Amino acid sequence: MKLFFMNDYGKGAHPKVLQNLIDNNESVQVGYGFDELSSRAKEKIRKACKRNNAEIYFLTGGTQTNAVVINSLLRSYEGVISANTGHINVHEAGAIEITGHKVIELPHEDGKLTSKEVKEYLDAFHKDENKSHMVMPGMVYISFPTEYGTLYSKQELNSLYQLCQEYRIPLFIDGARLGYGLAAPECDMDLPTLAGLCDVFYIGGTKIGTLSGEAVVFSNPEIMPDNYVTIIKQMGALLAKGRLLGAQFDALFTDDLYFEISKNAIKTAHLLKQALKEKGYRFYIDSPTNQQFIIIDNDKMDELHKKVQFAYWEKYDENHTIIRFVTDWSTKEEDVRKLIELL
Amino acid sequence: MKLFFMNDYGKGAHPKVLQNLIDNNESVQVGYGFDELSSRAKEKIRKACKRNNAEIYFLTGGTQTNAVVINSLLRSYEGVISANTGHINVHEAGAIEITGHKVIELPHEDGKLTSKEVKEYLDAFHKDENKSHMVMPGMVYISFPTEYGTLYSKQELNSLYQLCQEYRIPLFIDGARLGYGLAAPECDMDLPTLAGLCDVFYIGGTKIGTLSGEAVVFSNPEIMPDNYVTIIKQMGALLAKGRLLGAQFDALFTDDLYFEISKNAIKTAHLLKQALKEKGYRFYIDSPTNQQFIIIDNDKMDELHKKVQFAYWEKYDENHTIIRFVTDWSTKEEDVRKLIELL
Amino acid sequence: MKLFFMNDYGKGAHPKVLQNLIDNNESVQVGYGFDELSSRAKEKIRKACKRNNAEIYFLTGGTQTNAVVINSLLRSYEGVISANTGHINVHEAGAIEITGHKVIELPHEDGKLTSKEVKEYLDAFHKDENKSHMVMPGMVYISFPTEYGTLYSKQELNSLYQLCQEYRIPLFIDGARLGYGLAAPECDMDLPTLAGLCDVFYIGGTKIGTLSGEAVVFSNPEIMPDNYVTIIKQMGALLAKGRLLGAQFDALFTDDLYFEISKNAIKTAHLLKQALKEKGYRFYIDSPTNQQFIIIDNDKMDELHKKVQFAYWEKYDENHTIIRFVTDWSTKEEDVRKLIELL
Amino acid sequence: MKLFFMNDYGKGAHPKVLQNLIDNNESVQVGYGFDELSSRAKEKIRKACKRNNAEIYFLTGGTQTNAVVINSLLRSYEGVISANTGHINVHEAGAIEITGHKVIELPHEDGKLTSKEVKEYLDAFHKDENKSHMVMPGMVYISFPTEYGTLYSKQELNSLYQLCQEYRIPLFIDGARLGYGLAAPECDMDLPTLAGLCDVFYIGGTKIGTLSGEAVVFSNPEIMPDNYVTIIKQMGALLAKGRLLGAQFDALFTDDLYFEISKNAIKTAHLLKQALKEKGYRFYIDSPTNQQFIIIDNDKMDELHKKVQFAYWEKYDENHTIIRFVTDWSTKEEDVRKLIELL
Repeated sequence: MKLFFMNDYGKGAHPKVLQNLIDNNESVQVGYGFDELSSRAKEKIRKACKRNNAEIYFLTGGTQTNAVVINSLLRSYEGVISANTGHINVHEAGAIEITGHKVIELPHEDGKLTSKEVKEYLDAFHKDENKSHMVMPGMVYISFPTEYGTLYSKQELNSLYQLCQEYRIPLFIDGARLGYGLAAPECDMDLPTLAGLCDVFYIGGTKIGTLSGEAVVFSNPEIMPDNYVTIIKQMGALLAKGRLLGAQFDALFTDDLYFEISKNAIKTAHLLKQALKEKGYRFYIDSPTNQQFIIIDNDKMDELHKKVQFAYWEKYDENHTIIRFVTDWSTKEEDVRKLIELL
Repeated sequence: MKLFFMNDYGKGAHPKVLQNLIDNNESVQVGYGFDELSSRAKEKIRKACKRNNAEIYFLTGGTQTNAVVINSLLRSYEGVISANTGHINVHEAGAIEITGHKVIELPHEDGKLTSKEVKEYLDAFHKDENKSHMVMPGMVYISFPTEYGTLYSKQELNSLYQLCQEYRIPLFIDGARLGYGLAAPECDMDLPTLAGLCDVFYIGGTKIGTLSGEAVVFSNPEIMPDNYVTIIKQMGALLAKGRLLGAQFDALFTDDLYFEISKNAIKTAHLLKQALKEKGYRFYIDSPTNQQFIIIDNDKMDELHKKVQFAYWEKYDENHTIIRFVTDWSTKEEDVRKLIELL
Repeated sequence: MKLFFMNDYGKGAHPKVLQNLIDNNESVQVGYGFDELSSRAKEKIRKACKRNNAEIYFLTGGTQTNAVVINSLLRSYEGVISANTGHINVHEAGAIEITGHKVIELPHEDGKLTSKEVKEYLDAFHKDENKSHMVMPGMVYISFPTEYGTLYSKQELNSLYQLCQEYRIPLFIDGARLGYGLAAPECDMDLPTLAGLCDVFYIGGTKIGTLSGEAVVFSNPEIMPDNYVTIIKQMGALLAKGRLLGAQFDALFTDDLYFEISKNAIKTAHLLKQALKEKGYRFYIDSPTNQQFIIIDNDKMDELHKKVQFAYWEKYDENHTIIRFVTDWSTKEEDVRKLIELL
Repeated sequence: MKLFFMNDYGKGAHPKVLQNLIDNNESVQVGYGFDELSSRAKEKIRKACKRNNAEIYFLTGGTQTNAVVINSLLRSYEGVISANTGHINVHEAGAIEITGHKVIELPHEDGKLTSKEVKEYLDAFHKDENKSHMVMPGMVYISFPTEYGTLYSKQELNSLYQLCQEYRIPLFIDGARLGYGLAAPECDMDLPTLAGLCDVFYIGGTKIGTLSGEAVVFSNPEIMPDNYVTIIKQMGALLAKGRLLGAQFDALFTDDLYFEISKNAIKTAHLLKQALKEKGYRFYIDSPTNQQFIIIDNDKMDELHKKVQFAYWEKYDENHTIIRFVTDWSTKEEDVRKLIELL
């Protein structure tokens, strides 16, 4: 069997997550997210974030979560600012636009949105005499880590958040791989710090230990619209058996499991990164997290492909291709070593 | 602990469904529904339906499934015909309308849409000189069993389907509780027959043995639009770990598990129904499936409520209320007997 | 040429309306509704309504106006309550639904929504344990006159408006034929009274003297969302040359022209109604305004059709049809007399 | 009074257009675009385009027209390719996105979309392994002239159209200022040629002689969806008195009026351009049509502003601003000469 470094959603659930589903399977639970497991999980997440008044909702997947959060916070004529490399702008098949909103794309820097770029855009917008004929910027969307595995520093995030507060538009962090970002040694924030530097974010489960599920955390619950259950229901995102998500997050946030398993992805990624460096591979971008992008000879790529599953990213030039190796919570050091040998 | 007859989504998964998740947890699978478990499950469902060319997609919940199927089949200016009691018209928070389509409500008969009513509507529409100013009927939606637990006979369904074919609009069956309908002795159809009398339907998992998941079956794949994966993705309904749904349906359609466990709900419901009759309770509607609606004295209701969980349905008059008892695949005969004693 | 009693949009503009377009044609005007003609017209309408702080916008046609007003006032998960005979529910091709909102249809009484019916609906909704799974009623829509030419009394309107205020949902009046309603002797309200008994309404121009144009009046400007120009622009309803609408309404609200010309439609309609009564025709509904509905023998109808243009409404029974005669601001008494002779 | 070079929608209608409204005001006409004036105007436009089978619809304004055409031609999950400077991407307040579709923005060259850029995009899209997770490009939108007054050559347009045909996606031309483009000496196409090099386009009336109105021409009627009147109605764009648009276009396309009056804008613009060149002004872009963009000293701008109305475009640098002068069908040579003196 080929070595697997293709993505971070190829495996099932972490054994403890699965065990929690098994342990609670026969209990009777109230539906639609009001079950005890969800309540317990929410309480644990509030503690992990050190935000007692945070409002939390469990949704099923990343695209759904982005669509629900963004559509629920924007007024009908507002759009969401995103790096042009942002997941909502590239790889969600128009899930934001189908809710009626424009993704206002700005240039990225290593996959990140800079506060300088956003400030220039907002300033120009508000000075524009024709602004009433333009899509009004109603929120800012960033991913942490970004689609290229990069991280915002505390200062960068703080700067973006202050800007958002100045312009009174919410800042939303897509945390599909949040744990992997927080576990990186290069990350200078913990979860409570990050939670305090945005209005709403989500903690991705699908890529870090669950079978499905993302936890939306309104660290600033004042921006949350009324009737959130109805909003979720209308968008087809309300699970009858909310316990499925509750049980998984209950396990993830017991004994810091989420943080512990995230570390494995980083440890194995760094092992790989180090080896790649030593072997002289060229990096497409310098990523401190679980996604590593390298520029590789097409011949080498074809050879490697016989024994390893990795992701084709994009063409670099006639003879080279950018490929991506991904580690996750379940990656074995042993497999990384086998990969290194093949490189 | 109170006896539980409140709904059919209060329990976890059937043990064999859970076991299949456990057994396959460590395997590496392709994402987004292209995993082996989903393929295997689809093949089994095709066999169960005796439709070799059926196209099948797994989605997460009922409201999501209705929204995806209906929106994907209607042109922008078309609406969907439904009984006014239809789930999409009453209890999905506007999930169809948010996709831009009107639910064209027609009067129901015991929760069912009659072909007579639909024919009159379609005839009148097509004769109307102002029809270009009206919402064009683009499909027919029914539920089997209905929201009141009732069933279409083979003749009724056949009549509706012929009508739809005559007017060239697809017939879609919401099968959130499909198994419970097929398991009722009063049902004169099996799955292949039902599959042949509509264009598309879904096999509900959430209420019959899974933690989540509905299987959309295009028994007439010709009506299916291109790029269905993109459509599902855009509506936030594509799971990265499609295996979650695949594994559950793989188990449900192994050794007729779906049909076997459905029978339990019907057996226990009939036991209860018989006892209610004998004790002289008044039925709000004559349901052959797992939902039983009775008209009860408010005093009696309050007393019963101390020991039993059931669903308040609606006020009947000043002194009476309609309540609903629900059984499911996991209901124990022993609990039904305890309930009967309390009645 | 056949006599014309088909509808109230078959003629051009009132000569004074056209003259105002001619008189101002060469002036240079600011675009997008900020022209002097629009400002002047708004001021005149405010005076006519005795609402100094009313916010006013000119839009192009009735369906567009209903869509803009309703969509701008509803939250994403809310619907609009309407009589099932309401124009938005029947003859606007789904223009409300395409904006994502359900039309919540309630039974009508002579084309009207009764406060009793609305109250029962709202009470039941708010008591419903599943209300978070239902479309939330977010406003009430009525037409004055209704689609059947009938009128709300001051007491009926007052009762509806108090109910709306109690439930904190806006009341919107579709006044496509407002002038004809106010001009009827049976009407016990003037424009300021009507303006004070709703939150927002529109004064129809297209059917009363203009070539195009409806004036939206927020008599309760507090409910108006911010950035209304952007909302109008986004919905494709903002005219570059707002002067076209401004000039027409400026003329209509100079020297009470709107009210004066509306009287002609009523005078001629009553002349016709009286004659129809005397000749023993059966009325489908008792309308005090410019639309008269009668039940006629199919043979008689076919004969009449050779010399008169009228509107086929709907089949009454095998041998009878409901037809509609319409008068307007330009109808000549002489033509009514010719019609009476033919009847 | 200040000299007016602000925009091309500040004046009323051309006298002949107004006269046609006056001449036909008292006639009785069928509603909703089926009037004789509209039929006559369509026939004249077909002749002017030399497309006997073209399907034509009259709509009210540019944003509305873009929204109706684009939404009607795209499938739910498709987006429209546009230059990032395109009107739909910048100045229509999200009118495309509110219909659920993404504007896929590509870099512009002098306001134009190059076939090279589009080809690279389409090729990359179709080769992308993740394309099912991306917005599918479903049509190409260009403006002629562009928002910067520039023109596509016949060869450029031909190249784009061949590309669109190869990829089977329609090409749509926004012709808000079409006449001004065709009248430019630099333009190497006439109307029939342009009509043959796209699938659908519109002939702008609002900016060239009418009070309102744009004529959508499906030169390739095979791409037009069924039930177009319903589509227009649903989007609130169907005028009851279609005669308003019919009469105006009937006049515009009688005796080549549209082409004749367009020439005036170009003649006066070239007079101005020549003078600007001679006086050493720096041009922001080289425009052959009725919009001229120059880079001006802020001091000079402020001084000029006292006597001339022009459009502020955008900041160039600390001390300079880009401003726009616009001429139109009604601009007087005398006023241009006065402006030249002031420069």
